[in-house]
Amino acid sequence: MTGVTHHVINRCWEIAALTEEPGRITRTFLSAPMRDVHHLLGEWMEQLGMRVRVDAAGNLRGVLGAGKQKLVIGSHLDTVPDAGAFDGILGVVLGIALAEAYGEPNNIALEVIGFSEEEGVRFGKPFIGSRAFVGTLDESLLTGDVTEAIRAYGLNPADLPEAHFDSTTAAYLEFHIEQGPVLESLNLPLGVVNGIAGQSRFSLVFAGQANHAGTTPMPLRRDALAAAAEWISRVEALANNEQGLTATVGSIRVEPNAGNVIAGKVTVSLDVRHASDAVRQTSVRTLLSAAEEICQRRGITVQAEQKMDQAAVAMDAQLRQTLATAVKDAGYPVHYLTSGAGHDAMIVAPYVPSAMLFLRSPGGLSHHPDEAVLPEDVDAAVSVGLKFIRAMEAENV
Amino acid sequence: MTGVTHHVINRCWEIAALTEEPGRITRTFLSAPMRDVHHLLGEWMEQLGMRVRVDAAGNLRGVLGAGKQKLVIGSHLDTVPDAGAFDGILGVVLGIALAEAYGEPNNIALEVIGFSEEEGVRFGKPFIGSRAFVGTLDESLLTGDVTEAIRAYGLNPADLPEAHFDSTTAAYLEFHIEQGPVLESLNLPLGVVNGIAGQSRFSLVFAGQANHAGTTPMPLRRDALAAAAEWISRVEALANNEQGLTATVGSIRVEPNAGNVIAGKVTVSLDVRHASDAVRQTSVRTLLSAAEEICQRRGITVQAEQKMDQAAVAMDAQLRQTLATAVKDAGYPVHYLTSGAGHDAMIVAPYVPSAMLFLRSPGGLSHHPDEAVLPEDVDAAVSVGLKFIRAMEAENV
Repeated sequence: MTGVTHHVINRCWEIAALTEEPGRITRTFLSAPMRDVHHLLGEWMEQLGMRVRVDAAGNLRGVLGAGKQKLVIGSHLDTVPDAGAFDGILGVVLGIALAEAYGEPNNIALEVIGFSEEEGVRFGKPFIGSRAFVGTLDESLLTGDVTEAIRAYGLNPADLPEAHFDSTTAAYLEFHIEQGPVLESLNLPLGVVNGIAGQSRFSLVFAGQANHAGTTPMPLRRDALAAAAEWISRVEALANNEQGLTATVGSIRVEPNAGNVIAGKVTVSLDVRHASDAVRQTSVRTLLSAAEEICQRRGITVQAEQKMDQAAVAMDAQLRQTLATAVKDAGYPVHYLTSGAGHDAMIVAPYVPSAMLFLRSPGGLSHHPDEAVLPEDVDAAVSVGLKFIRAMEAENV
Repeated sequence: MTGVTHHVINRCWEIAALTEEPGRITRTFLSAPMRDVHHLLGEWMEQLGMRVRVDAAGNLRGVLGAGKQKLVIGSHLDTVPDAGAFDGILGVVLGIALAEAYGEPNNIALEVIGFSEEEGVRFGKPFIGSRAFVGTLDESLLTGDVTEAIRAYGLNPADLPEAHFDSTTAAYLEFHIEQGPVLESLNLPLGVVNGIAGQSRFSLVFAGQANHAGTTPMPLRRDALAAAAEWISRVEALANNEQGLTATVGSIRVEPNAGNVIAGKVTVSLDVRHASDAVRQTSVRTLLSAAEEICQRRGITVQAEQKMDQAAVAMDAQLRQTLATAVKDAGYPVHYLTSGAGHDAMIVAPYVPSAMLFLRSPGGLSHHPDEAVLPEDVDAAVSVGLKFIRAMEAENV
């Protein structure tokens, strides 16, 4: 473990102690401990000579150097309830560590940004920080509760335009733990993100007929849970047969949910993700048709309601290449993968050329107190980050 | 509709008004409205010259005539919460109507009994009334809360032995709504009950690994809900292929039960019933093996806990024949069926020769405010009941 790596991991733990709930890591948008986070990170930035400010969305921003072009390195400062110590914050602390290790670049500016809000916990509106950065925090998101929270923190919603990236901003780079088991399963420290998968979410209600489990013979049943179970198996089978597709039923609610009563009504969730929007849309149509077919055969009904339809977002092709080259030059195998989870890079990429590097997640764990990162993988990320900054600098000679 | 039938249905509705919850029919063991039920039914009995008492278990009992042998006709007075107007009480009101229509039998006594408790709602202990009648209300059932309720009602637990049937008791006859759709599907008013199906209940816990639905590729998942869904389909398929078997998963609990998280732990119920204990036990073994096989293949675990193992109870062969003959002589088709639900007759049958007649349930509904009974089916039951009493009388000349 290098000194820098030791530094990074220790600093993540130091930030983890700044929490709303003693004994658990919980830090939501502009909550009280966020002020301590701003203070601590701001101090570390100032020690490097960075110019530090908190913008009106609560994003912490530190700039080092100047130039015609700016590289922004960042991730988010907030967490889910009972979180781990690395999701989000690792990307910010790594940014500061890179600024420290690299020093002031010759001909470009380096900005490290800690987005105030990504998880959507406090107001059910994810990406408040990065949306302010790219100017898509519109009125539907900037509701009274949100502006009130901004004011209560001592910031002024009228200043939000100043949160927007400036015209010199040439690239955004995000480091993040993978939050999945792929890199670990391949025994790789790092992964270059191709893009963020598109996402469809639905709620389906299977409506049959509740009846006595003892007195209703099998042929006379309209069992909503048996129908839903048949469909859940179809969801899994479809995803097993489509490369790169994930399809998940993670939630189920049964009425009346008693052991001796045939289920009358079952509500299930469906979550479908793929790097290709066409594959995702086709898969969703196939699954909704399967539900119809199953229910028609069983004399029950099904209603599907779409809850989310989010297009896939590709990372910038050129920056992805720059990042892959940095990985290779640092001596690591290049592995491309699609992110199945949303990230600030997904919000930023349509406006600022973006690249993203995943660090292996031990046990595939995330959003969990046991979430971790391996010191050797942080070593690797630091090496890659330095080479990435050097490449940006070289391009701007 | 005959006068007697009109009487029976009206009286059931009159009793339905005696409830713990305004606007809903809810009447549990020795609750306040039970006192009004005792009073009203007792009055109706006394008007027929019956000798009326409430035994120490809260059973209402009215005896008409005397003889070396006694025929007991009854069912239960209590209900589930938000019940219908006929489950249980119909069998008691029909008993009184038969006493009225028949008059005092020549050489046998007729006892109408309203059991105080069958549903198990108040103390989670079903059949308190009929268990007292047959002397199986042992210390494990007669706990402090139950004896306290008996005392609070003004009865004395020390008198419980007097609730036991006397040595002249030759037969028990129970009329009850079918609580299922079979008779309606066959367009039949009545069914002669062969016996009460045996019942196995289990709770199964499928334990996999909760993970992010977006970042965990299908081959790396250990999805407890996908496993449970595959097994639920197996449960249904097995029952579909075994004549007379019901197998039901009616309840499911998923952790963490979020749309974007793969299920880590799923708890499901299993309810298996059949007239043959051998068929039931074999089916249960097959289903538990299927769960093991599914989980082993998926790298997850399953634990099964037995919650109930209740043997099938046959009705008395000779009385069943007497009842079938009465149905035939009254001009109705004889259809035998197994009760998938427990009834007081199940408790009484091992001690007193018992017979049971089902009345068609419109829509198969029971334990529901819309539960009903057709007037013509009550007509049919009255005719059959009169012929049954006559047959008993004739045997005892």
